[in-house]
Amino acid sequence: MQKLHIQVLLFVLLLAVSSQAVAQNYYPNGKQWIEKAEALKPKLTETIVKPATLVELVQNENAFQGWEARKVAPIDSLYSKSIRQIKEVIVDLGDHYTGYFTFKLKTIWGAADSPVRFRLTFGEVPAELATPFDPFPGTISRAWLQDEQMTIMNVPSTNTLSRRVSCRYIKIELTGTSPYFDFGISDIQFKALTSAVKQPEALAATASPIVKKIDEIGLKTLKECMQTVYEDGPKRDRRLWVGDMYLESLANVYSYENHNLTKRCLYILAGLSDDEGYVLGTIFEEPEPHPQAGQRLMDYSLLYNVTLKNYLQATGDKVTAEVLWPVAKRQLDIIFNYVGEDGLIDYERANKEWWLFFDWKEGLNKNAAIQGLMLFVLNETYELATLLGKESEVVKVPSLIKTMKKAAMANLFNKKDGLFECGDDQQISYASQIWMILGGVLNEKQSQKALTTVMDTPEALYPGGPYMYHYFIQALINCNMQAKAKELLVNYWGGMVKKGADTFWEVYDPNNDFLSPYNFYPINSYCHAWSCTPVYFIRKYPGIFQQ
Amino acid sequence: MQKLHIQVLLFVLLLAVSSQAVAQNYYPNGKQWIEKAEALKPKLTETIVKPATLVELVQNENAFQGWEARKVAPIDSLYSKSIRQIKEVIVDLGDHYTGYFTFKLKTIWGAADSPVRFRLTFGEVPAELATPFDPFPGTISRAWLQDEQMTIMNVPSTNTLSRRVSCRYIKIELTGTSPYFDFGISDIQFKALTSAVKQPEALAATASPIVKKIDEIGLKTLKECMQTVYEDGPKRDRRLWVGDMYLESLANVYSYENHNLTKRCLYILAGLSDDEGYVLGTIFEEPEPHPQAGQRLMDYSLLYNVTLKNYLQATGDKVTAEVLWPVAKRQLDIIFNYVGEDGLIDYERANKEWWLFFDWKEGLNKNAAIQGLMLFVLNETYELATLLGKESEVVKVPSLIKTMKKAAMANLFNKKDGLFECGDDQQISYASQIWMILGGVLNEKQSQKALTTVMDTPEALYPGGPYMYHYFIQALINCNMQAKAKELLVNYWGGMVKKGADTFWEVYDPNNDFLSPYNFYPINSYCHAWSCTPVYFIRKYPGIFQQ
Repeated sequence: MQKLHIQVLLFVLLLAVSSQAVAQNYYPNGKQWIEKAEALKPKLTETIVKPATLVELVQNENAFQGWEARKVAPIDSLYSKSIRQIKEVIVDLGDHYTGYFTFKLKTIWGAADSPVRFRLTFGEVPAELATPFDPFPGTISRAWLQDEQMTIMNVPSTNTLSRRVSCRYIKIELTGTSPYFDFGISDIQFKALTSAVKQPEALAATASPIVKKIDEIGLKTLKECMQTVYEDGPKRDRRLWVGDMYLESLANVYSYENHNLTKRCLYILAGLSDDEGYVLGTIFEEPEPHPQAGQRLMDYSLLYNVTLKNYLQATGDKVTAEVLWPVAKRQLDIIFNYVGEDGLIDYERANKEWWLFFDWKEGLNKNAAIQGLMLFVLNETYELATLLGKESEVVKVPSLIKTMKKAAMANLFNKKDGLFECGDDQQISYASQIWMILGGVLNEKQSQKALTTVMDTPEALYPGGPYMYHYFIQALINCNMQAKAKELLVNYWGGMVKKGADTFWEVYDPNNDFLSPYNFYPINSYCHAWSCTPVYFIRKYPGIFQQ
Repeated sequence: MQKLHIQVLLFVLLLAVSSQAVAQNYYPNGKQWIEKAEALKPKLTETIVKPATLVELVQNENAFQGWEARKVAPIDSLYSKSIRQIKEVIVDLGDHYTGYFTFKLKTIWGAADSPVRFRLTFGEVPAELATPFDPFPGTISRAWLQDEQMTIMNVPSTNTLSRRVSCRYIKIELTGTSPYFDFGISDIQFKALTSAVKQPEALAATASPIVKKIDEIGLKTLKECMQTVYEDGPKRDRRLWVGDMYLESLANVYSYENHNLTKRCLYILAGLSDDEGYVLGTIFEEPEPHPQAGQRLMDYSLLYNVTLKNYLQATGDKVTAEVLWPVAKRQLDIIFNYVGEDGLIDYERANKEWWLFFDWKEGLNKNAAIQGLMLFVLNETYELATLLGKESEVVKVPSLIKTMKKAAMANLFNKKDGLFECGDDQQISYASQIWMILGGVLNEKQSQKALTTVMDTPEALYPGGPYMYHYFIQALINCNMQAKAKELLVNYWGGMVKKGADTFWEVYDPNNDFLSPYNFYPINSYCHAWSCTPVYFIRKYPGIFQQ
């Protein structure tokens, strides 16, 4: 997730000088929190992966994005030949991995009288290796694409690309060599990294094959994204975003149980919150922990509270929850600042001063969604307060919840069709229904009706990607539409499985393989944290998904 | 120098497996010699160079290869701006340097939300930066060209290119960035390396400005090539070749006086000589010292002896000379093996079994040249034997010299025009005259006539490059044509000076800026050891060159 609203961009520009330094003054202990987070930095588990197979790319209109990787030979057919003869080859690691690529060069005859040069391209999916990257049409950095040039001064040699990459397929092209010696490639190794260590439990024997497969791929997706923080994607953006962390931490509770990683992320986000105490949408670890200054992302800031509450419930770690409670409390001020006495969010002002994300969906009106999400967060934060015995610090929340629900029903709900609508054009979207249900605005029956109706409304704006699908599934579960929840999970994530996914994707529209928020589908992340949540659903609700 | 004869290539192919390992059996102490050489490996002097200027490339038909680097702004105009705005810039180090390139990236606004990518191109001469490298027409490795891609994961950061480069000009092109932050380049540093430490003495005040300039550039050329061995060129091939070492060590005696470097090179070549005891044309230092197996380069093997003799004379280090004497003696066997009882080289066989280099000159018949060079080497080696009191080991040399001289005069000399000619077409070349004179075949008067006549013969094959020009100057000096020697040195090397050389070039034909032995002039080396010898002439013969 890379986009900034233009308003936010201007805001960043204005704040650039003042907020450049990592200097949070709002929380007296902010600096210590960063130190605490750094002390929790996990040592990554290293696994050496040796590829077994070479593949070729074959055009196939039925394959995802039109390209299929077809096995052509065992890896030995590369190791036993001259790379000068082969010139170009695609190595298949057999699965998706994140880490460092190493290979050896060995002399076949003569002595290397020159450097040699390779172009290496790392792909998470086959089409990444088949699509020319230049001229680059994307709207984010060309440097995300994992094509690298390596000039190697000596043969024989062992060579490691310094850049961490994320891939299953590796295209090796020899682009510079001398006619006066010959050489080959040998001993390709990929050092795979993760902070997910524990082996999650097997699913019930009753789980269907497709659910098992979805769970397996979800686990792998999560594992790949679990590095020294919860990354959004190990290929791109390789960093901690609150929204991704929220979903990853949910799945982690039911799988790898690396609660210290959640703790680290909660501390680092708190320590790097802005000078008004608001948690920023994303932070960076290198060269030292620092925030995306000015990156005010309203739905993400608020979901911090929910993550903290879930962490407390999963671990019973009251100490951490109490230390970070002031941060959660402060996030509620976002709600207080934008909700009028009438209980309605001032959507226009909020949308101007913050980035409201929710989904990659062109034209989505987020007025109802943010009203619903605020209610969800108020409920969750009040529950957190209760667990900590801090209700007295948030006394106005219960009444605010009531006012806001009423306001939602009075102003955004169309009683005639039972749907939330927003904007001048009375926009009907899944997002509006989903978030109002998660916010507890509708009762079970109303919720079922809203979801059923919206699914029967072809013109309704449907979820743009896996992130919104998570909330959709949760909304269906919340209102007891279990069969539909299962069907949707199986169809949506199963759709990726059927298209050959090794890990779940950042963007998936069953109707458009080439969709990209960045105007160039090879730059999409094909192992993306927010897509891992089937792990959470399948394991938290075995009665729904494992029967 | 990269080319191998096709015969040598086949030979290499045949020997490939057997001679791959560094296992010399001919000299019992071969391995110890390599260890001795390694112990002599110099610690390089590091100098941090900070560029002061930006330049632009301007087409100019009067400039070398058609391109001129024109100063456009001080370096601060780069450091004070956004590189996203500048996009592309050429930095001028102000002189030629060999080493490592480092630069900093600093944030201007926002926080870097993506990696950034640069294409860096390092040029010794302006045209290298103006000529497209692809599609690559050269006959040697594309990887020699100094264009590199750097993907940088973090801003701010300090970044060093891992490849050692050799350049004056650095083109920086931003090829990947994000619209969501801005950044600039600062603090470019180039860590220049050399094993030339001593400051050579100033020339006499009487030396002309052009001679002073030639000496200065020659010194710089030598300094750049003096690394952990005498390299032929710090850009390409970056390694020890006997012929280059010979000329560098001559110049070193009269300038930097790093005799240990000569000693190291003599030891390493001896230790890595082939399984018949012949010194190979070139060796490599990395990943561990190893030879170019099968690289039998006759004129180079023989010049090893001359280098050893000069080393002894310069240092008085009899111990080393005695240790390595068996190597010199063994090289004489090359002569004994190819010279018949008639005193004539069996040119056809020699040319088939060895590479005879002498010069980059298409079509050059090397029959007379190798006869002359053998005589030169016999004389020099006998002198070495005399210095070591080993005449008894080479008793047959004096009479062989006589026989070979007579045979040369009887078979290769055209008395009518006073020129050596060779081949079926009676080819007349400068090379033939030069080497016969250096071999002492002609007396002073005959030598003067041969050189004067050849210079008056338009169809004679003239020297192809600086390496042969060295021997040309020496031949002129040997036969007391001092004025001509000076004129030639000033015209030839001064020609490079006038064309803007910072260091002297591997290839220089006053009539063709674009000449390349590798079919692509940007891959030529523009700081090349064998071009440094004006330093030797100017300083050894002050009466000729400094008056």
